[in-house]
Amino acid sequence: MTKKALPTNRDHKWVYLFTEGNTTMKMLLGGKGANVAEMTNIGLPVPPGFTITTETCNAFYDYSRQFPEGMWTQAQESLKVLEKQTKREFGNPKKPLLVSVRSGASISMPGMMDTVLNLGLNDETVVGLAKQTKNERFAYDSYRRFISMFGHIVMGVQSDRFDFVLDRFKSQNPGGKDTDLSVAQLKDIIAAYKNIIFAHFHGEPFPQDPLDQLRMAISAVFESWMRRRAIDYRRIHRIPDTLGTAVNVQAMVFGNMGSNSGTGVCFTRNPSTGENDIYGEYLLNAQGEDVVAGTRTPQKITRLARELPLVYAQLTEIITKLETHYRDMQDIEFTVEAGKLWILQTRTGKRTGTAAVRIAVEMVEQEMITHEDAVLRVDADLLNQLLHPMVDPKTKAPTLTTGLPASPGAATGKVSFDPDEAEELSNAGEPIILMRHETSPDDFHGMAAALAILTARGGMTSHAAVVARGMGTPCVVGAEEVYLDYEAGIAYVGETEIRAGDWITIDGSTGRLLLGKVNTIQPELGSSFNKLMKWADDIRKMQVRANADNGHDAALAREFGAEGIGLCRTEHMFMGEERLAVMREMILAEDRGSREKALDKLLPIQRQDFIDIFKAMQGHPVTIRLLDPPLHEFLPDHEQLTLEITDLKLSLRDAASIAEMDAKLKALAEKNALLDQVERLREANPMLGHRGCRLGLIYPEVTEMQARAIFQAASELRSQGLQIEPEVMVPLVSTAPELKNQREIVERVAKEVLNSYGMDYSYKIGTMIETPRAALTAGKVAGEADFFSFGTNDLTQTTFGLSRDDSTRFLPSYIKSAILPADPFQVLDQEGVGELIKLATQRGRSTKADLKVGICGEHGGEPQSIWFCNEVGLDYVSCSPYRVPIARLAAAQATLKKNAVA
Amino acid sequence: MTKKALPTNRDHKWVYLFTEGNTTMKMLLGGKGANVAEMTNIGLPVPPGFTITTETCNAFYDYSRQFPEGMWTQAQESLKVLEKQTKREFGNPKKPLLVSVRSGASISMPGMMDTVLNLGLNDETVVGLAKQTKNERFAYDSYRRFISMFGHIVMGVQSDRFDFVLDRFKSQNPGGKDTDLSVAQLKDIIAAYKNIIFAHFHGEPFPQDPLDQLRMAISAVFESWMRRRAIDYRRIHRIPDTLGTAVNVQAMVFGNMGSNSGTGVCFTRNPSTGENDIYGEYLLNAQGEDVVAGTRTPQKITRLARELPLVYAQLTEIITKLETHYRDMQDIEFTVEAGKLWILQTRTGKRTGTAAVRIAVEMVEQEMITHEDAVLRVDADLLNQLLHPMVDPKTKAPTLTTGLPASPGAATGKVSFDPDEAEELSNAGEPIILMRHETSPDDFHGMAAALAILTARGGMTSHAAVVARGMGTPCVVGAEEVYLDYEAGIAYVGETEIRAGDWITIDGSTGRLLLGKVNTIQPELGSSFNKLMKWADDIRKMQVRANADNGHDAALAREFGAEGIGLCRTEHMFMGEERLAVMREMILAEDRGSREKALDKLLPIQRQDFIDIFKAMQGHPVTIRLLDPPLHEFLPDHEQLTLEITDLKLSLRDAASIAEMDAKLKALAEKNALLDQVERLREANPMLGHRGCRLGLIYPEVTEMQARAIFQAASELRSQGLQIEPEVMVPLVSTAPELKNQREIVERVAKEVLNSYGMDYSYKIGTMIETPRAALTAGKVAGEADFFSFGTNDLTQTTFGLSRDDSTRFLPSYIKSAILPADPFQVLDQEGVGELIKLATQRGRSTKADLKVGICGEHGGEPQSIWFCNEVGLDYVSCSPYRVPIARLAAAQATLKKNAVA
Repeated sequence: MTKKALPTNRDHKWVYLFTEGNTTMKMLLGGKGANVAEMTNIGLPVPPGFTITTETCNAFYDYSRQFPEGMWTQAQESLKVLEKQTKREFGNPKKPLLVSVRSGASISMPGMMDTVLNLGLNDETVVGLAKQTKNERFAYDSYRRFISMFGHIVMGVQSDRFDFVLDRFKSQNPGGKDTDLSVAQLKDIIAAYKNIIFAHFHGEPFPQDPLDQLRMAISAVFESWMRRRAIDYRRIHRIPDTLGTAVNVQAMVFGNMGSNSGTGVCFTRNPSTGENDIYGEYLLNAQGEDVVAGTRTPQKITRLARELPLVYAQLTEIITKLETHYRDMQDIEFTVEAGKLWILQTRTGKRTGTAAVRIAVEMVEQEMITHEDAVLRVDADLLNQLLHPMVDPKTKAPTLTTGLPASPGAATGKVSFDPDEAEELSNAGEPIILMRHETSPDDFHGMAAALAILTARGGMTSHAAVVARGMGTPCVVGAEEVYLDYEAGIAYVGETEIRAGDWITIDGSTGRLLLGKVNTIQPELGSSFNKLMKWADDIRKMQVRANADNGHDAALAREFGAEGIGLCRTEHMFMGEERLAVMREMILAEDRGSREKALDKLLPIQRQDFIDIFKAMQGHPVTIRLLDPPLHEFLPDHEQLTLEITDLKLSLRDAASIAEMDAKLKALAEKNALLDQVERLREANPMLGHRGCRLGLIYPEVTEMQARAIFQAASELRSQGLQIEPEVMVPLVSTAPELKNQREIVERVAKEVLNSYGMDYSYKIGTMIETPRAALTAGKVAGEADFFSFGTNDLTQTTFGLSRDDSTRFLPSYIKSAILPADPFQVLDQEGVGELIKLATQRGRSTKADLKVGICGEHGGEPQSIWFCNEVGLDYVSCSPYRVPIARLAAAQATLKKNAVA
Repeated sequence: MTKKALPTNRDHKWVYLFTEGNTTMKMLLGGKGANVAEMTNIGLPVPPGFTITTETCNAFYDYSRQFPEGMWTQAQESLKVLEKQTKREFGNPKKPLLVSVRSGASISMPGMMDTVLNLGLNDETVVGLAKQTKNERFAYDSYRRFISMFGHIVMGVQSDRFDFVLDRFKSQNPGGKDTDLSVAQLKDIIAAYKNIIFAHFHGEPFPQDPLDQLRMAISAVFESWMRRRAIDYRRIHRIPDTLGTAVNVQAMVFGNMGSNSGTGVCFTRNPSTGENDIYGEYLLNAQGEDVVAGTRTPQKITRLARELPLVYAQLTEIITKLETHYRDMQDIEFTVEAGKLWILQTRTGKRTGTAAVRIAVEMVEQEMITHEDAVLRVDADLLNQLLHPMVDPKTKAPTLTTGLPASPGAATGKVSFDPDEAEELSNAGEPIILMRHETSPDDFHGMAAALAILTARGGMTSHAAVVARGMGTPCVVGAEEVYLDYEAGIAYVGETEIRAGDWITIDGSTGRLLLGKVNTIQPELGSSFNKLMKWADDIRKMQVRANADNGHDAALAREFGAEGIGLCRTEHMFMGEERLAVMREMILAEDRGSREKALDKLLPIQRQDFIDIFKAMQGHPVTIRLLDPPLHEFLPDHEQLTLEITDLKLSLRDAASIAEMDAKLKALAEKNALLDQVERLREANPMLGHRGCRLGLIYPEVTEMQARAIFQAASELRSQGLQIEPEVMVPLVSTAPELKNQREIVERVAKEVLNSYGMDYSYKIGTMIETPRAALTAGKVAGEADFFSFGTNDLTQTTFGLSRDDSTRFLPSYIKSAILPADPFQVLDQEGVGELIKLATQRGRSTKADLKVGICGEHGGEPQSIWFCNEVGLDYVSCSPYRVPIARLAAAQATLKKNAVA
């Protein structure tokens, strides 16, 4: 981000009156300033004021933290205008003008100085305010508030020092509330506050000159731009420092001047449901901070119709005007001063996913916005809320800890630490939540039985996370504060103990672990959702497919609108207990003959799996990936086995008979043989080991069996008249000859099977691009491929040289210190991995112009990444079934954004 | 490789007389044909003949294995010319012309049909030959040989069927030799041979028509081009099928026509030592096959001066002529027929490294070739032989098995399977060879003590290989036929048992394991070597540095001509037992404070290491890499620890006293604590885990300590007036901010240290490029770097997605089946990894034009890879000290080749 050239002319305009700005000047005036100006100009009742530009902030830092020449003069001139407009005067005790000073960057940003109210009060003007409002208590209360606010926010005195004094005075009265403080007490408090400041600044008093106050407050806003928290926030959100913040100076209006005064917040539509009805809260006789402090419970906004009917009528009218003007739901702050309504701020309102969809669709129906607007307006990620059960927002259950939100949705159940037990209890009808250090394929049955899963270790693409997302099971991973003692059957979270059988709740959408049984609610996919999806489908250019490994998931994916399967992992098919046994038989085979015997047993199982999937997806392409993981993933853990052998040896001496001894010795021999094989297959870096197509090259009979199962299943169904489009995908290719080798095997088997069915239909053979080398040599690889599918999980690992399983130890710290802008396993790294995707797509298509190119890594369901895929010209994205609607919407948004740029 | 367009014109020239060709026509006539033609044309006595072109071979395959139109006619016409030249006639019993038929591709290639001699003999011509030579025995013996040779090589009958008959007849005579066979016996043998062929071909007799014989023999040569062995050889050596083979038909001359006949082979210079003296062997009254069969011992060539002085004089004259003509040492075949010398073949002679260097240098001194020719002529890899001890070529010890030649050199010693024992015995003066499954940092002391190392597992860049090369210790890895039983103390190699203490020999240059004690010889680096190196240094553009981790290796590297250190690995410095303890203390530290305490202990150790290295390399740059491996490499193995804990638990019941029990419990608690830490640091894929700069980012105090040690050492020595040039290298960077972060720490510490010494000198901070992402984003990374150094070991792993440790299971098969042309961990993969190197160099230099770029992976010492580095414009290569001379020569060759292209 290059720095803006700094204006050197002293006549440069640093300050804009609200009447001089408008909503398009956000970069210069900040979001708040631009919106207030816009409202002023469309004739809404906004207290007058002016904005010091964001440019000034940059100049401030370039001139060693001094105001640039001309600015202070312009600010004072603007103040004069304010005085005329309000018929009050700054610092004049007879008719004092008070102002608020607020920061306002062009992007809403926490961590900066927020607001100083009542600025302009001093020992003299407070007297004038009392007289003018005929309310001495109000005046001194305002002064008291101002000094502490100014002292804390502008002068940097710790706020608890003021609170301490206030509490002491409050405790002198019976009720103990601030509203009970007498004028005398308030004056004492003010004196005490001044002393605090005097002492803190070694004899420097609280500034009495309102102009000094203003200058200091403006400086403080600029200073807060470089406060640690603000800098951190910008680093993380990639906001350039050069944006700067604006400062808004606005005439005060008072909601605390009696019962026909008040303050409130309202939304033009319900931000939770999207219902087209005014929604909000207010308090009479109060200032903004009272609403926040929660000392009184605010009223529903509709009640205002009874309490101040004229104001309410005016408010509803303004609300309609604002929404129509901004063409979006607004979040509005207002104050009523002695019966007169003032609008202080408006901004686009935050909303739930449900509300976002409903509002967008209804605004189209009201002809406020176009289909395209509606599609652009809904944050695709928010759809997650619509697709998964969520923790009832009203819940009061405590959050024990937060891990990574690995698979969205919420579930309540009883804890189990053991997959076998989990399966057993689940079969018995118990709602089970599985908690593990981490999961392995051995745990699959327990994971499938659980309503939700939590692991103490692992990242967003750990085994648990990937499997859970595939199944749509809520899942939290990497909850590092959780310590599990399997033997004792206890999970420790700080001081809390959770025992097996205890009720807990997992919120996979936010990563929370809650203690106890909690109500979850299932959002409904209404007609608004379907309309929006339809519009998105009309707009988008990229196809959306799903990653699904079985008929059930495939059917679900179709329901969510998937247009095919982009990744069907065949290894998950071998995870069931019975199948695992055959798989192990295959792996442990000593020679090709016995291996083929085991494969013959696997063939009908695989074929049936494919039949189920093909059926669910008929009429759409199904990409089946050949066996990918290292074989040892199907074998027991080495260390576990070693310990079992040790135990077995020890138990030999307890044998009561020769027969028992013989049985034990036989078991020992078997385990030792297994250990040998496990040892032989053990790898230093399994992720980079003997897996993917490297298996098929060494054991071509595995590729043959899988190809046979695929084409037998397809032929079977085709003979029943179904339209089946198989696509065979070869994993982990790094050279063209590997793909050629596997392609030849698949083609040979396909020909055999098709001949035996007397059929002839087309199919595709392609490859995953998941090593940098495959991407770099894509021109050659494409010579052997009908399609490419980017496996961005592995491609990210290899491009970074970073194991996703091991990255949790340092990746969070990397993101925190902005070494990386985001977890590259969640949001595609466009600079590195993205460059390989771009390059491989270009090179592949220059060899084969009609090469189909897609993505099937986790990133296929992430909106920013989808945008990139569209940009690069991919044909499709593929993601887990639950993310298909998100991908459909994001793909449409990508098209619209691309068109907008073009 | 595109196919040559096939000539369609029937008048196309398929056949060339020897008088029509010359040495530049190698591609068309094959190597043998072109050389024989050249010799013919410079007037040497070559038996006349003709060559059927390599083009014909392609045509043969394109026309369904038929001769192309016109060829056979041209061959017969050429035969007529031969008849005129020799005054004999093909098939004429009165004066029969006999010919030899040989294959001859443009690249020397085993696996094809070699030679058929005496073609043209049949039942009638054999009688003529007997008459003409007045030697009936000679004629029938020739006929007997011809039938079996033709039957086997051309007709495909198994040769043992002929041998069986021959043996039967030989055993009838007392001596049992073939020379004892009578004419009658030979005739019986001939009859039996004909029957074998008749039976084999179901009634098809042995062809009597010499033209049929010739046609069949020519076809057989072409057929042999597509024989399995020939295809495999071409795949492996990347020789395109379209080259084709030529066929040479040449009039026979006979060395077996009496005592003034003979046959021999000679070299123009000694191929073993390079001495400028004729060298070779001959046999009087013999044909070529007799020399090969070894039935008689050949004579030294110099003896010929006494036996046939005129022939010898003529031979030495021809030899000189040939060497002068070809400007290189020649390997010549000759035959003397009745006192007349015939030259049958000449080719560039193969030679040892020593000979290659001496011949090249002496030819420069004789003004036969230029310096540049000399530099280009010595195969850089051959220098290995000059630099390491080698197995005496005269040895008769059996080779038990062959693994990967991981570190060159040979050593004889007694086997040890245990590093502790190896160290102990070595200290006691025993010559020890360490044999292990594989090695880990824990074994370092044993490896350092051993004369040679063999591992059953691992690849060329496994721990054992890298460490051994670094130390210059001969090493064989991945000897998969070796099975080790540590407990029994036995290594099994097939049927052979090797027990601890047995004598074996390791040849790390060839990968051999030999049984028993074997003589090894140390080649001398003579003045020729130094002259050649000097010329190479004058020519080359790239600098050559060494990878060295201690003062000893640094000094060695200087002796071999290294111009700096390109990679000093700091982790090896912590491997000594005492240092490892402190290292573990650092790793096990619970907080930064205790970690810093341990680091304080490491600081002086590191500083001394650096002082040693800097001293040895003064005046040259030294690149020091910050700590790179995952911390758990310094901890005990997880499983080992688990088993120790189990054992300790079991031993509790044997405690004889409470005191002993307490001691055991204390030990148990300590081991459990250690296990906890080991578990915490355990990684699924350590290669992609928490290592490299990721350590320095999480533990900045480690980077600080190392930087402090480096600059204290440098400042110390500079204060003594030495010229020290430190370069700090940050490992495993994948993003520019990582490097920035580490750079800031190093700069801060350097400033502190330099200030404290009151010094100011320049130093460099750079990074290893060893992840694809670093290469892709090199433009940004270069913004933080003074230099790049390609760590091609890891870059190859990440680019391929291939763990070098785990690749042995499939990589050999990949190379065998030509999926990969070579092991990418030995020879740089130019297509994939090379592209990243090219791209990173370009992008880096476009950001920073004077960026220094080098390579420090294993490839830095491999000639092909060095050629590529020069091509891409790298500034230097860095390799193990022992490969520095190879790199110097290869770098010079790269410059010359590049100039030749330009």
